[in-house]
Amino acid sequence: MKNEKQIRLGIIGIGNMGSEHCRLILGGKCPEVRLAAVADRRPERRAWARETLPEDTKVYGDGLELICGGDCDAVLIAVPHYQHAPMAAAALEAGLHVLCEKPAAVQAGRAEEMIRASEKAGKTLTFMFNQRTNCVYRAMKELLESGRMGALKRMNWIVTDWYRTQRYYDSGSWRATWAGEGGGVLLNQCPHQLDLLIWLCGMPCAVTTKYSEGKWHHIEVEDDVSALLEFPGGATGVFVASTGDLPGTNRLEIDCERGKLVCEDGRVKVWRLKENEREVCFTSEDPWYRGEPEMTELETDGENPQHVGVINAFAAHLLRGEKLIAEAKDGLRELELSNAIHLSGWTGERQEIPVSREAFDRELEKRIAGSKTRNVADVTYETNHG
Amino acid sequence: MKNEKQIRLGIIGIGNMGSEHCRLILGGKCPEVRLAAVADRRPERRAWARETLPEDTKVYGDGLELICGGDCDAVLIAVPHYQHAPMAAAALEAGLHVLCEKPAAVQAGRAEEMIRASEKAGKTLTFMFNQRTNCVYRAMKELLESGRMGALKRMNWIVTDWYRTQRYYDSGSWRATWAGEGGGVLLNQCPHQLDLLIWLCGMPCAVTTKYSEGKWHHIEVEDDVSALLEFPGGATGVFVASTGDLPGTNRLEIDCERGKLVCEDGRVKVWRLKENEREVCFTSEDPWYRGEPEMTELETDGENPQHVGVINAFAAHLLRGEKLIAEAKDGLRELELSNAIHLSGWTGERQEIPVSREAFDRELEKRIAGSKTRNVADVTYETNHG
Repeated sequence: MKNEKQIRLGIIGIGNMGSEHCRLILGGKCPEVRLAAVADRRPERRAWARETLPEDTKVYGDGLELICGGDCDAVLIAVPHYQHAPMAAAALEAGLHVLCEKPAAVQAGRAEEMIRASEKAGKTLTFMFNQRTNCVYRAMKELLESGRMGALKRMNWIVTDWYRTQRYYDSGSWRATWAGEGGGVLLNQCPHQLDLLIWLCGMPCAVTTKYSEGKWHHIEVEDDVSALLEFPGGATGVFVASTGDLPGTNRLEIDCERGKLVCEDGRVKVWRLKENEREVCFTSEDPWYRGEPEMTELETDGENPQHVGVINAFAAHLLRGEKLIAEAKDGLRELELSNAIHLSGWTGERQEIPVSREAFDRELEKRIAGSKTRNVADVTYETNHG
Repeated sequence: MKNEKQIRLGIIGIGNMGSEHCRLILGGKCPEVRLAAVADRRPERRAWARETLPEDTKVYGDGLELICGGDCDAVLIAVPHYQHAPMAAAALEAGLHVLCEKPAAVQAGRAEEMIRASEKAGKTLTFMFNQRTNCVYRAMKELLESGRMGALKRMNWIVTDWYRTQRYYDSGSWRATWAGEGGGVLLNQCPHQLDLLIWLCGMPCAVTTKYSEGKWHHIEVEDDVSALLEFPGGATGVFVASTGDLPGTNRLEIDCERGKLVCEDGRVKVWRLKENEREVCFTSEDPWYRGEPEMTELETDGENPQHVGVINAFAAHLLRGEKLIAEAKDGLRELELSNAIHLSGWTGERQEIPVSREAFDRELEKRIAGSKTRNVADVTYETNHG
């Protein structure tokens, strides 16, 4: 690296998310990152970059040009989903490290190619799973990993607080189309929750989905999903997601052998049993044993650095070998689960995980073949919404 | 009726529930009911009755003897599930009115026979859906029926607070066996919730179940159920029940076009939108419209008369034609849903409701054929647990 104290970062795609990342870095929140270059195919975004960004930030008309420009040690990829895999592979092959927006790709097969490119190049690949930096999820992860709650028995996540009006979908010609975005609430809104689900509870081994496309909006892709999950140890789960519920709910319950955790409204309530339920069930003489576990609120450190946390960890990893927020394989696993929920919804059948990549790709191709670009003007929102 | 101010009630089966009903009536909580007779096949229970009940309460060794005894206008049937249908039919044919414990029967076909017997005899048939008397469910029913919440979009009921230890199942040789009880958490614990679900949200038209028998206990029948529900109007639902979660959860969320209701910990929170989401979705210019609905706690009358409420309504219906807590068809509908969840769990396939009665009965018969009586001493608990 030119400057041992900073990585030179290029941001490819400066739409909603990419422009927000620029602002974070320029706002001084990422002291180990220098914004070396940006790239976007749209002239109006490049004009914005030239007006807004420092003079020494190079502005490219295409991600591949940026990759070949030699100004960067690493890139942050914030282009539409289908371009994640080819853009990441190009960057890795050019010797750059890659931080890629979620989801890793649309098809798990493409995410696997990204990982292979990373391994071949010996360069870092990671994903923007910024919700992992939220103190409530970190505290839950720590408690679950400590073993104090015992093994998982059940989980239930209602994540229906992703409400979007039709206007949201009408803001981009590619939005909510099979050809342009590759999926709906599973691909755009829920990669964070699916990643957290795997991070906290482990990878499910099967899924049965009740699924609807364009149920609440005039869109091609899914906006309502209910999934029954099965875990290798016998635990079960429920995952419900929608962009059509108002007001929605975001409530995650995790039931273990020694109690339960409920995360809602930014707080985690914990009920801890004195004994392991799996033992007390067979030793108690009380038919209606209750154990009367005390409920406490899980303490957290209050920190929730989100995108800044992921970018800073990426820089610290490259500069000093510190731990990433998520590894490359985590991006693949999230997509394995997402693809399985989709395929179960499409086929109406229970699917074991991982699903056949050929079967998923074939079903997706059918939908892409019938996909229509939305006849609307593209809008870039200056917000950090997904 | 001999005394125009009281019905003469016979209680058939004075085990856990029946003996509790005796206590309620003798405790003066049912002024329009006179406990005219009881029946039980077990000598120790009859001994208890002779010691405990008033001298003018007749004690029979069998329900059919009580029915033929001429002491009663009506009977309350609290015998094991499989005996509900034949006992009710016998009582109705003998000209008695019938209040039957839940579930109506094990097979929906038997519940239908009970209804036919009631219609033929011109006598009242009703079921012990005492949870309908709970003020929180009554207040929810009133609000939903008023139309102020708009149409149903989604429901989610986690009812895992039915924890039972192995000791509970070891308290009866018939318990949790296919031949003796006919089912587990769906048949014994959850008829109330399944009835309330239908009462509040309407009858689902299809179900897909993830289902386990003897998962948490050494029993033949199911103790863990997760079901995806579909409603005729397109709404979806999740129903999760277990006797193996400690501490469990009892949380019912109902999402409608104009807001949502969440019932937990004996309280109902209501979020009301000013507009109908189905309209605002297509008229708002805000992609991330939130509507900021106010949350209020649903007011109730605080009354929760439970079994007393059902018994008193039954008496008031017979004496003065007042409204019952539940009609005969409600017992059938609850069992239609319960049977469908079972059949989906057994077959691993989505089932449309109503399911084929032949298919359900055939699958149940297979399980009865392999059923084993539990080699344990029978215990009668003096509690009002289910």
